[in-house]
Amino acid sequence: MAKLYFRYGAMNSGKSTALLQAAFNYEERGHRVVLAKPAVDTKGDREIISRLGVTREVDFTISPDAAVREVFEQHRVRSGKVDRAGRDVSCLLIDEAQFLTSEQVDDLLRIALLDGIPVLAYGIRTDFQTVAFPGSRRLLEVSHSLEELKTICRCGRKAIFNGRRIGGRYVFDGDQVAIDTSAGPVDGAEVEVEYESLCGVCYLQESGGVLNGRH
Amino acid sequence: MAKLYFRYGAMNSGKSTALLQAAFNYEERGHRVVLAKPAVDTKGDREIISRLGVTREVDFTISPDAAVREVFEQHRVRSGKVDRAGRDVSCLLIDEAQFLTSEQVDDLLRIALLDGIPVLAYGIRTDFQTVAFPGSRRLLEVSHSLEELKTICRCGRKAIFNGRRIGGRYVFDGDQVAIDTSAGPVDGAEVEVEYESLCGVCYLQESGGVLNGRH
Amino acid sequence: MAKLYFRYGAMNSGKSTALLQAAFNYEERGHRVVLAKPAVDTKGDREIISRLGVTREVDFTISPDAAVREVFEQHRVRSGKVDRAGRDVSCLLIDEAQFLTSEQVDDLLRIALLDGIPVLAYGIRTDFQTVAFPGSRRLLEVSHSLEELKTICRCGRKAIFNGRRIGGRYVFDGDQVAIDTSAGPVDGAEVEVEYESLCGVCYLQESGGVLNGRH
Amino acid sequence: MAKLYFRYGAMNSGKSTALLQAAFNYEERGHRVVLAKPAVDTKGDREIISRLGVTREVDFTISPDAAVREVFEQHRVRSGKVDRAGRDVSCLLIDEAQFLTSEQVDDLLRIALLDGIPVLAYGIRTDFQTVAFPGSRRLLEVSHSLEELKTICRCGRKAIFNGRRIGGRYVFDGDQVAIDTSAGPVDGAEVEVEYESLCGVCYLQESGGVLNGRH
Repeated sequence: MAKLYFRYGAMNSGKSTALLQAAFNYEERGHRVVLAKPAVDTKGDREIISRLGVTREVDFTISPDAAVREVFEQHRVRSGKVDRAGRDVSCLLIDEAQFLTSEQVDDLLRIALLDGIPVLAYGIRTDFQTVAFPGSRRLLEVSHSLEELKTICRCGRKAIFNGRRIGGRYVFDGDQVAIDTSAGPVDGAEVEVEYESLCGVCYLQESGGVLNGRH
Repeated sequence: MAKLYFRYGAMNSGKSTALLQAAFNYEERGHRVVLAKPAVDTKGDREIISRLGVTREVDFTISPDAAVREVFEQHRVRSGKVDRAGRDVSCLLIDEAQFLTSEQVDDLLRIALLDGIPVLAYGIRTDFQTVAFPGSRRLLEVSHSLEELKTICRCGRKAIFNGRRIGGRYVFDGDQVAIDTSAGPVDGAEVEVEYESLCGVCYLQESGGVLNGRH
Repeated sequence: MAKLYFRYGAMNSGKSTALLQAAFNYEERGHRVVLAKPAVDTKGDREIISRLGVTREVDFTISPDAAVREVFEQHRVRSGKVDRAGRDVSCLLIDEAQFLTSEQVDDLLRIALLDGIPVLAYGIRTDFQTVAFPGSRRLLEVSHSLEELKTICRCGRKAIFNGRRIGGRYVFDGDQVAIDTSAGPVDGAEVEVEYESLCGVCYLQESGGVLNGRH
Repeated sequence: MAKLYFRYGAMNSGKSTALLQAAFNYEERGHRVVLAKPAVDTKGDREIISRLGVTREVDFTISPDAAVREVFEQHRVRSGKVDRAGRDVSCLLIDEAQFLTSEQVDDLLRIALLDGIPVLAYGIRTDFQTVAFPGSRRLLEVSHSLEELKTICRCGRKAIFNGRRIGGRYVFDGDQVAIDTSAGPVDGAEVEVEYESLCGVCYLQESGGVLNGRH
């Protein structure tokens, strides 16, 4: 039986690198993979970009109202190729999976369960207020396997949260999604938005004890 | 640094047994533990009951509006004892943690981070519609470690979901909480409510493809 | 594909409880399991004894020169029963697996790979000198999944080693196997042999920095 | 308390990429890391080479008779720098750790336990006969955490073993170490040596049922 895997981590934990390595491993052994990511992620548009310097274009992007299983099905038929295992696709890999809708995650589960194709979904667990994104929330509920990609906090402990800084200061109110502009303004933004992955202790220090808007 | 652990599993995966074993291990090495569970769980009232036949009373129950960290603090002070490690409490263990509120889970995280006491929370991941309970939803977001307690489906695959049967038939609509009455009616219930932990494939077979109310 | 699982832990981490819970879970869902343990383990002879108070007799014991796969095969044929999944046996569970020979572990792997029956092997990782037992050494090499059953040291950290005390004093030389007599002398032993699971720091304190006979 | 981590996998599972990502993560947050690998590994001499195309020089190589803790200590003193956490080194990362001696692994454990510096050791679990290398054998015994880096077999299942091919044919006898020459002959070798990571079923098919020289 194929499974749905959620490989989650704080920001900058190496999720894209891990995804690109997984794709490389499949292809090296003669298997075909399909890569996708939500269209909402404007970083690099159609590219998966690893901070180690490796990049690769996705096979398709997923708009918020897309029926993922249908889109994937069309993509499989169109390619018409068969890999070493006699299958057209051996694995579906999703980057930035936290931006999927709940329904789209259900489709990923159906792809694994009903189409027999393993799905590896990589994404951030929670936003800057420690609340799950729609996609990660659903992935945490239905994935067969929850696997953490670890990174460290500035203090050396394991990071589990993501702090947001605007103009250099930590903020704890605002929209769930605000794209990182530390590498330069996006869409004319004037004020820099940055994220820092933090352990629980450092997060509470910065927030004055607030978690999810509450003391 | 102390951590918050969420040990989740499908129903009847042995969560209470694992909790009682963890408590036993701590005490055998001269440490003091505190056990608690949400008051909403009417199975056994103040008791943690393992299907292997082991039972034990909790130190306190948690009502839906309780401030868990305060209640725990009072409990620590009242006992006034110090264990082998020179601490009054070495571990807080929570059974049926899925029934906690989101705020109460935040308190568990604060107990770990600010009071330095490890918290082991045992609970069910999702309800009969594959949606997280309030407590499990928040535990999936903020726990340092997500550890699965595995069990099997009738077909031999790993169970990840919980199906609800009323009067012997699977149902996919209804309230999130309906206590299992398979061991005899509770509070005068006339119709038997049962749960069966299922793998994704068997769940979809029973539900006709429905996940969370949607095809 | 069935897999070989090695669930390892320090002494008194709850391995037998976990095994008995796994067996219970299988049987509750209508599956048949077979339990076995090495004959060299004299604690309880044919019984698996959990410190929580649960006990159960094994289906067969494994002598040091036994061909495990053949013995298991005979046992399957003899029973002649078929379980809910249409199989005669859904799982083979092994307690005290550290005492198996390397060849016997290879047989467990063959049972999983060639006979399609999952094998859950529970055992101690290392002896009082921090060296693997023959069975655990091989299980660490070939198991599909290495899963730790955690317990704590006297100091509250995770225990990873096992210290041996004779007459109350830690010793770091001697035979690999010396059965615990803390619950009363075995075979007329006059001096009490005990074990205590320790973290790495406490182990090095007791051993004066020695690991595996070396500074 | 710092810990010793063993991140093991079959060949070509992405161990070097994962190591380089971990180093990148530490440094991005202002921490200093030290990278090392056994001198016996002639691939790239002083370089860690990821198949994704990322490379980096190690800080020191470890000869078979080196006292790792002393060499590391000298390296720390010589550098004389202090990182953001006020420490000279926040993490020691080891590539190809399977080629360490058992004593050298004990030194890694002492660096974690006594010097308080986390050690991340990446390596192959077993050789082409399914037997652990000296370094991996010891790491499996004493590491605080055993974490698998997964890759797939040609058949799509998870690879757990490494097959050796000489001149295109699988062999199951020979020295434990024979460096891969598939990218071109090393040291004048005339016959190509290659490795392929295999699942248990495919390995047994190629070996005619032999594991570790035995049927």
